[in-house]
Amino acid sequence: MENFTYYAPTYFVFGKDQESTAGTYVKRFGGSKVLIHYGGGSVVRSSLLDRVKASLAGEGIPYVELGGVHPNPRSGLVYEGIELCKKEQIDFILAVGGGSVIDSSKAIAAGSVYDGDFWDFYQGKPVTKALPVGTVLTIAAAGSEGSPDSVITYEDGQFKRGASGEALRPAFSILNPALTQTLPAYQSACGITDIMAHLFERYFTNTKEVEVTDRMIEGLLLTMVHEGPRVIADPNNYDARANIMWAGMMAHNNSCGVGRGQDWASHDIEHELSAQYDCAHGAGLAVVFPAWMEYNIDHDVMRFAQVATRVWGCSMDFANPKKTALEGIARFRAFLRSIGMPQTFEELGAKGEDIPAMAHKAVYGNGRSGSIGGFVSLSEDDVANIYRKML
Amino acid sequence: MENFTYYAPTYFVFGKDQESTAGTYVKRFGGSKVLIHYGGGSVVRSSLLDRVKASLAGEGIPYVELGGVHPNPRSGLVYEGIELCKKEQIDFILAVGGGSVIDSSKAIAAGSVYDGDFWDFYQGKPVTKALPVGTVLTIAAAGSEGSPDSVITYEDGQFKRGASGEALRPAFSILNPALTQTLPAYQSACGITDIMAHLFERYFTNTKEVEVTDRMIEGLLLTMVHEGPRVIADPNNYDARANIMWAGMMAHNNSCGVGRGQDWASHDIEHELSAQYDCAHGAGLAVVFPAWMEYNIDHDVMRFAQVATRVWGCSMDFANPKKTALEGIARFRAFLRSIGMPQTFEELGAKGEDIPAMAHKAVYGNGRSGSIGGFVSLSEDDVANIYRKML
Repeated sequence: MENFTYYAPTYFVFGKDQESTAGTYVKRFGGSKVLIHYGGGSVVRSSLLDRVKASLAGEGIPYVELGGVHPNPRSGLVYEGIELCKKEQIDFILAVGGGSVIDSSKAIAAGSVYDGDFWDFYQGKPVTKALPVGTVLTIAAAGSEGSPDSVITYEDGQFKRGASGEALRPAFSILNPALTQTLPAYQSACGITDIMAHLFERYFTNTKEVEVTDRMIEGLLLTMVHEGPRVIADPNNYDARANIMWAGMMAHNNSCGVGRGQDWASHDIEHELSAQYDCAHGAGLAVVFPAWMEYNIDHDVMRFAQVATRVWGCSMDFANPKKTALEGIARFRAFLRSIGMPQTFEELGAKGEDIPAMAHKAVYGNGRSGSIGGFVSLSEDDVANIYRKML
Repeated sequence: MENFTYYAPTYFVFGKDQESTAGTYVKRFGGSKVLIHYGGGSVVRSSLLDRVKASLAGEGIPYVELGGVHPNPRSGLVYEGIELCKKEQIDFILAVGGGSVIDSSKAIAAGSVYDGDFWDFYQGKPVTKALPVGTVLTIAAAGSEGSPDSVITYEDGQFKRGASGEALRPAFSILNPALTQTLPAYQSACGITDIMAHLFERYFTNTKEVEVTDRMIEGLLLTMVHEGPRVIADPNNYDARANIMWAGMMAHNNSCGVGRGQDWASHDIEHELSAQYDCAHGAGLAVVFPAWMEYNIDHDVMRFAQVATRVWGCSMDFANPKKTALEGIARFRAFLRSIGMPQTFEELGAKGEDIPAMAHKAVYGNGRSGSIGGFVSLSEDDVANIYRKML
């Protein structure tokens, strides 16, 4: 195991009706004037936004609002938010929504206390200071409610890039599984896929002797395999929603990723797809990840065989471990299909002719120098080959 | 799943040589004058204490020292520490040692900013304020390095009681697995048992639909089953020590215990043994836990069968699940025996004649009203029966 530091000081408030405590926690974490940041109509239609506002009003905390966050959140709205925060002397940002809203909030939080262009943080500058962010989560997926990360898509250039820094960990996050019950099945499945991808990005490592984090990751994957189909079959299954919601946070707060190399090439490869075609991130990952696995299986057949037996319930073929490893990937594909996820470029609306440009951007964009991935280092050609497997 | 809040803001610094950062983190978390609290000779002999002092001196942070913490830490030294902190205007406590040292440090931290008797907190008063505590951990066991709990034994009355409160979560904890390599096999095994007990206390629940925490607990148990025998066979196995150290923290920081009822009767039953006979807590748990399991198996045979199959690798006997459940307990017993743990009163130095008094104290002590346990509610008679199974 490698040396590491780990610090996850987010206060989690989990359970039914807990959005009514938003005002209490804004106060507890020092907010005196709040920007409420949200997306589209669903938080309005469901009256969630009204309940959150009432909670702030109940504590006598003034607020301004900025809605309009889209999936794959854009830099344009971030600039607008930063300007608003500076003008209104906002000292706390309350994100009401999913990963896109939270990531947009984090970008505004960092940009509001920075004199330069916030995009610097998405070009590699570490975030060391930001306004505190609270979240009221409405979809289990991105794990941004407990992570130090944010991903934003630049308005003009179709660049989708990440920023990171402990200052971006939310001060508090309110997780009410009931709020996710109104999600359409497709969005639920995208969330399930994203959570599993966060686990796999950590699982595929060259670090030896990481039994504790291997076992935690496998436990969380087994949870998703059990609970995922239950919420697709019955969107109102509160308990399945609750298990997925906590698993989604644990999958990305990095307690199961410490002390080990991680990969993240699949996320980089997917980001080009969702930046280019504005597809859902989870759907993109469903197409990318099995292809990435098949392409890299020979790098460490036994690791693929381990997850095949421990998570996918395959019998180990001791005479031919690669057969077991491949069977695991096949079961992952079948699982994704069973919850309604796409498997090809065509289903995503992506085009084969864009592969060379995307492969180039994936390995050279964001200050990269021609390769991505921690488990297997992938060149531009490798990435193009992986894209071609999705055709 | 039940509603819950979860807040674990300890900063973890994990890996080789990390004790040299103690001064940096004391400074970061606001310490300007430190009490270094420790136990006996081993931290002196290994020069760990010198390295920690050098680290404080390197940051120009003055300190006073208080050694002498014993296993099952006593109230007497806590009173001494509180007096010292008040006299010397200490604002940070640095625990260098294992769970006993950390628990004693937490008691001093709470008592130093409280006008009454610190023992009030161990009689049920919640701890809402305490000096910040940092830890340099030397044994993977109690999980106190990441928990809001402390257990102290009262000097006169052989009462061993717990206090709890978020203010008792350490500000930082330095976990260097190499520091645990010098532990005798018996102490290592006691630590392994304590960690597994923390997991089982959470596992045995009446709360339904807790797949995510079930799976996390099982993953951590599987880690202990794999790594435990490796450190007994080779005390210098750094990687096995590292996996156990992170598992020990995760087992008790409660991320795998949220949203579910827990039990803790086995700890209560054991505390009477270690208070009375001053045996090691882990050794006491090795005697208590299998007896508790056998006594309560009929309360939920399928839960015992689940852990038997998922953790102990038993084949499920679908015609007779209780047979599988019992086989799981038998394998747990064999595991404990294989790492050198005791299984009987005699091996602990405990006496059958004391059973009535201990059973009475277990269910009526610490403000309890005649029963203990969240999974099964145990009366005085039940506890006496469980003790008798250990004869």
